[in-house]
Amino acid sequence: MTNPTAAILVIGDEILSGRTREANAYHLAGRLVQVGIDLVEIRVVPDDHRAIVDGLHALSAAVDHVFTSGGIGPTHDDITADAVAAAFDVAIDVREDARAMVAAAVGDRRLTDDHLRMARIPEGATLIANGISGVPGFSIGNVHVMAGVPSIFVAMLDAVLPSLGSGEPVVSREVRFEVGEGRIATPLRRLAAQHPRLSLGSYPFADGRVFGTNIVVRGTDPAAIDAAVAQLEELRGSLG
Amino acid sequence: MTNPTAAILVIGDEILSGRTREANAYHLAGRLVQVGIDLVEIRVVPDDHRAIVDGLHALSAAVDHVFTSGGIGPTHDDITADAVAAAFDVAIDVREDARAMVAAAVGDRRLTDDHLRMARIPEGATLIANGISGVPGFSIGNVHVMAGVPSIFVAMLDAVLPSLGSGEPVVSREVRFEVGEGRIATPLRRLAAQHPRLSLGSYPFADGRVFGTNIVVRGTDPAAIDAAVAQLEELRGSLG
Repeated sequence: MTNPTAAILVIGDEILSGRTREANAYHLAGRLVQVGIDLVEIRVVPDDHRAIVDGLHALSAAVDHVFTSGGIGPTHDDITADAVAAAFDVAIDVREDARAMVAAAVGDRRLTDDHLRMARIPEGATLIANGISGVPGFSIGNVHVMAGVPSIFVAMLDAVLPSLGSGEPVVSREVRFEVGEGRIATPLRRLAAQHPRLSLGSYPFADGRVFGTNIVVRGTDPAAIDAAVAQLEELRGSLG
Repeated sequence: MTNPTAAILVIGDEILSGRTREANAYHLAGRLVQVGIDLVEIRVVPDDHRAIVDGLHALSAAVDHVFTSGGIGPTHDDITADAVAAAFDVAIDVREDARAMVAAAVGDRRLTDDHLRMARIPEGATLIANGISGVPGFSIGNVHVMAGVPSIFVAMLDAVLPSLGSGEPVVSREVRFEVGEGRIATPLRRLAAQHPRLSLGSYPFADGRVFGTNIVVRGTDPAAIDAAVAQLEELRGSLG
């Protein structure tokens, strides 16, 4: 496939400690499929400067677009913006347009030094607006730095996605088998070889006492997908 | 902290394509907190040999225990065992004890070459039994290779966890503020400095139209946690 690639770096002790179930990578995955950008890695790291910088270096070199989630608020554990500046080796300071957005969100009279931390933007970045909190994220190089609060992450993604190049949307269809993977592995292997441009994923499930298998056919060519699904349905019929 | 560290490598196109919401890393995170092992990275990669090998190399060098999830079934897209063997540079073949377990699970008369793929175990590995499917995972070096089906992953983790060294269980308590992070960032920063052995996480939330903040105090010393929580409750009271 020649679609653009993406990765997400989720910054959050709350995910790694089991307190919170990750939601933003899941949302991002669903959105990127629709626009034909291939998500090739999800990485969750702690609120730790070194871990964030290392993750940014690795992912921004490996894929076309890196999204980050979390760590851009006003408190002592919000260290993402500084880590991004360090990763790109640029200065970071309060920027006037970001300050105006934060002031509008918080109210000028209540604005504290902590609030102003949210207006600290690495040099050369472009702001990402959002209509939920009003406090901006930012893009620098191929990295898009977004909030961890899911409703704000969603709004920032809506703002940034149209500006990214997109590829061919990936379509998927699913055929459910009420037998274990082992019963259909051989014909499935043959089918996968017949359709080199499609991805055939085999996902076993345990549904009460029944072991079954969902076969997911993915690709960018609807006619080829339909043909593979027809073959799978024929296979399912032949199992009786 | 001197607790042992862990990471999980989730192998699965189905997560990256947005089809499935990841569940095993979330379960693992909750379990590791209880036994005092610090989960320091979650990484999700595709069903791709190179991506799995690279992930294994990076994570097994960085942490004490690596768990993998997914890709150990009988179908063409189940390539985890081979990637693990390649990462450790050891041979892989059908092993008699694993073959017996697979045969017991599937039924000897129905056993196919595809089923036998599940009995291919890298040289030097130890099997991980599970009472759900009967098909084993395995441990090699500091890597524990487990199934992607959540009920089987849970059973394998139950089997392997008691054999790992554990640390001091991490306890957490939460104080909810009905104000945004900016209002409490300054006292919170002071409190975090007063309790260097505790982790104070600040998690903003948007609950309908209310922006609030959950402060999570984490650590291994219950008395210190109680003291910090009392200070947070006093702070909350002072906000009126």
